Amino acid sequence: MFTEERLDIIDHVAISARDIGEAVRWYTQTFRCKILYQDETWALLGFGNTKLAIVHPSQHPSHIAFVHSEAEKFGSLTPHRDGTSSVYVADPAGNAVEILKQT
Amino acid sequence: MFTEERLDIIDHVAISARDIGEAVRWYTQTFRCKILYQDETWALLGFGNTKLAIVHPSQHPSHIAFVHSEAEKFGSLTPHRDGTSSVYVADPAGNAVEILKQT
Repeated sequence: MFTEERLDIIDHVAISARDIGEAVRWYTQTFRCKILYQDETWALLGFGNTKLAIVHPSQHPSHIAFVHSEAEKFGSLTPHRDGTSSVYVADPAGNAVEILKQT
Repeated sequence: MFTEERLDIIDHVAISARDIGEAVRWYTQTFRCKILYQDETWALLGFGNTKLAIVHPSQHPSHIAFVHSEAEKFGSLTPHRDGTSSVYVADPAGNAVEILKQT
C-alpha cells in the first residue's frame, strides 16, 4: 500500500497589529474562530486547521511558524512560557520564519 | 454530548518572493511539503494542514486566505482559474485578508 510521507505542519501564522483588542474583535466577528490567549501585547486565535497570532509590532515581526523535527539544526532554540521552543530564521526572500521544535 | 462549533479554515498563507524558484527550493529543502503548482509568478506548496503560496510582489501582497460561507458579503468576488472565487479586504490593522467562497 502506498503511504504518503507525512508533511510538516504550519503551527501558526503571525500578523502585526498595534491594537490587539481591535484586531481580535474583527477576526472573531468576521470568522468562526476561538480566542486561545489574549493580552495587550499579543493574542492567539484557533481556526479549524491552524492558529492565527496577532502580535504587537514591538514584540515580533509578522511570520509563519512551522513545526520541524530537527529545529535545533537551525540555531539556538529559545524556550517559551508554554513549554515550546523555537528559533527565528529568514527565508531567501527575507520573510521571517519561526521553526518550532516538535514536542 | 457537547459538539464544538465548526471553526473556519485558513486555506493558505501567501508570502512575497521575487525569485519564486529560489524560495520553492528553500521551502522544499527545509520542510516536508509538496509542490502543488509552480510557475515564474507564483507557487503553491502543500503542508500537512494548510498551504503556503509564494507570490511575486507584482501579483499580490502577502496575505492570509480564509474560507468563509458568506464571502460575497465582503464584496464582489473575483473568479480564479481553479474554480474558486474570492475578495480581498484589509483587517483593522491593514493586513491583507483574502476571503474565499466555500465550495
